Amino acid sequence: MALLVQKFGGTSIGTTERIEAVAQKIKLSKESGNDLVVVVSAMSGETNRLMSLAGELTDDPSRRELDVLLSTGEQVTIALLCMALEAISCDSKSYTGGQVGIQTDAVHSKARIVGIDTHRIQKDLGLGRVVVVAGFQGVDDQSNITTLGRGGSDTTAVALAAALKADECQIYTDVDGVYTTDPRVVDDARRMEKVTFEEMIEMASLGSKVLQIRAVEFAGKYNVPLRVLSSFKDGPGTLITVDGGDEMEQVAVSGVAFNRDEAKLTIVGVPDIPGVASKILRPVSDQNIEVDMIVQNVGLDKKTDFTFTVNRGDYKRTKSVLDEVCKKLGAEKAIGDSNIAKVSIVGVGMRSHAGVATKMFEVLSDEGINIQMISTSEIKISVVIDEKYVELAVRTLHSAFDLNAEVA
Amino acid sequence: MALLVQKFGGTSIGTTERIEAVAQKIKLSKESGNDLVVVVSAMSGETNRLMSLAGELTDDPSRRELDVLLSTGEQVTIALLCMALEAISCDSKSYTGGQVGIQTDAVHSKARIVGIDTHRIQKDLGLGRVVVVAGFQGVDDQSNITTLGRGGSDTTAVALAAALKADECQIYTDVDGVYTTDPRVVDDARRMEKVTFEEMIEMASLGSKVLQIRAVEFAGKYNVPLRVLSSFKDGPGTLITVDGGDEMEQVAVSGVAFNRDEAKLTIVGVPDIPGVASKILRPVSDQNIEVDMIVQNVGLDKKTDFTFTVNRGDYKRTKSVLDEVCKKLGAEKAIGDSNIAKVSIVGVGMRSHAGVATKMFEVLSDEGINIQMISTSEIKISVVIDEKYVELAVRTLHSAFDLNAEVA
Repeated sequence: MALLVQKFGGTSIGTTERIEAVAQKIKLSKESGNDLVVVVSAMSGETNRLMSLAGELTDDPSRRELDVLLSTGEQVTIALLCMALEAISCDSKSYTGGQVGIQTDAVHSKARIVGIDTHRIQKDLGLGRVVVVAGFQGVDDQSNITTLGRGGSDTTAVALAAALKADECQIYTDVDGVYTTDPRVVDDARRMEKVTFEEMIEMASLGSKVLQIRAVEFAGKYNVPLRVLSSFKDGPGTLITVDGGDEMEQVAVSGVAFNRDEAKLTIVGVPDIPGVASKILRPVSDQNIEVDMIVQNVGLDKKTDFTFTVNRGDYKRTKSVLDEVCKKLGAEKAIGDSNIAKVSIVGVGMRSHAGVATKMFEVLSDEGINIQMISTSEIKISVVIDEKYVELAVRTLHSAFDLNAEVA
Repeated sequence: MALLVQKFGGTSIGTTERIEAVAQKIKLSKESGNDLVVVVSAMSGETNRLMSLAGELTDDPSRRELDVLLSTGEQVTIALLCMALEAISCDSKSYTGGQVGIQTDAVHSKARIVGIDTHRIQKDLGLGRVVVVAGFQGVDDQSNITTLGRGGSDTTAVALAAALKADECQIYTDVDGVYTTDPRVVDDARRMEKVTFEEMIEMASLGSKVLQIRAVEFAGKYNVPLRVLSSFKDGPGTLITVDGGDEMEQVAVSGVAFNRDEAKLTIVGVPDIPGVASKILRPVSDQNIEVDMIVQNVGLDKKTDFTFTVNRGDYKRTKSVLDEVCKKLGAEKAIGDSNIAKVSIVGVGMRSHAGVATKMFEVLSDEGINIQMISTSEIKISVVIDEKYVELAVRTLHSAFDLNAEVA
């Protein structure tokens, strides 16, 4: 008998019919002998509906009141799911974040969980009940309702799994696992049986948006085995664990990720003086623009070029900030390109495999793809290329690193 | 400076535009020097929307989960109202029933308030804030969410007013006060300045559905001055108090109420033996059918006729119960009529005015209206008549007892 925390997102419970299907899934899992704590999000569309009501009243609602408003979305779902479970004779009980003792700090709309009192849950589990908990929400030490921000239901599930020392935290989504790359780009992309937390974090931050990165980090920190499964079809999904297992040691690269959502900016001919990087980036971050990759070339004649990427939506704003910086620093000019893409290979196996980077660059070069920027970490190599080559690059790398599904 | 509890119902806050109008009303009242606690219902239509979601899952939802579901309606409104107040720079703070310390018993869907901890409200009032509280809901001693049943928001408002020793509890509705009778039937029905709790209870139970009878009883018990006002136009409304005031002593009758929602049943020729009434009514109440008026005529030949009224929706069910009872008791037959109406005159002044009943019967007789049943209390006389005469009876009585509005 295992203790499982299962989380169902908005699409999985978007209609009462789907709620009934989820209830059946839960009942089956319960009857096969598991103790279950189920975390649910708001029904898909509900959060947007509530946000637009707020938007009719004010452009800048109080974050405290926004949390009071939005937290009703999950509260509706817990009640409906318990009714659906009851209708098929599966004993259950619903709890809001506050009722079940999910304590957070007081930072409304992006609160962090500071503790969970599992007393009530343990009692209900002992009575054979399925415990249904509203995701995304908690209360601060003054009993004010807080929410955890986007994707917070994943975090709730992981936090509960950690607090309860659950055997597994299962995240049900609309995909049946984590793939070696996007199956829409590469036909024979392969579902991974296992992936490490580190790899998953790199994949997530690079645009494979299966799981919220915050939940994965949380799971990694507390060593909670995390599994991604489909709400709509059966299958083992992908297990995310600390250790990739023996079979993982054999491969250098686990997956290919890509992101078309960035733009590149370069400030050319900057005087190469100490502190120049911060002089360039400070005005950018002052505008709340997040910078991703940063590359500074060694300069000639005491001048240097400085290149970085930002979210494509921030491109124009960043360009005008840079034009100002250019004048101040006496640099030559600021140039930019928003038609770029970032392609990355990820894998814990890289650590012990030499020549992975070389192979990546060769493979791209053989296809005539020019590399504009390079950035590396211990388990990831990212390159920036012309956006028009992104599918070609992903397919070629996926095949070159033997990630394609084996033909049965 | 007065401490007021103001309650706004579902129609008053049915759209974001109306919520904005209510916010303006609150701000004006606040700026004129009042301390304000505001109780709100769910937006009109929201409770039905939630009920129909539940209905898609089960015919008989768990009452605990139904309370979890329905209580979100008010929670949405408190947040939206606080946002609207904030948008016009009126400092406020929202609380759910549980957050503000509304303790109830554990009877889900019709819980009774057992206590209120006013600590947080007092503190916020001290800081100059408008306190916005979700009506209709509370928590039991295990922090389970409970609801107070239909009209529960009125009860919340009155209970808060009692606990806070407020100067007045103001119920904002879609009518501008309590009238001497239904203005749709009698053109010159008059808004009453004042009415006593007793009169209001009789009026409410007779179909003048301005206020929930439970809230009026509660207000009477704790001596909370209650005022009914319109959300949509200005005006003093109607004050409901313990004492009707001197001017009330002059009139015998304060208002004329009527109810078309009843049906009449008679069991004819019942053997007149001890306990016959309970033998007839027990099988009826066993079917959860509520009986209103009851009249037993003195019988001849040791036989009696027994007549009572029920809600018109229960007529057919009651008739078949009575047919069974008829056989068991050896009565002649059970007959019934669903085309009836109940018309009542109400007034604390009746106590000290002789001949009020006589006058009522004469007035009706003069119009050729036959009286089928009569029932009296200290401050009310009700008669059952043919439904087709109801408007005529109400207009005639309204005029005969000098209730018509004075021509200015």
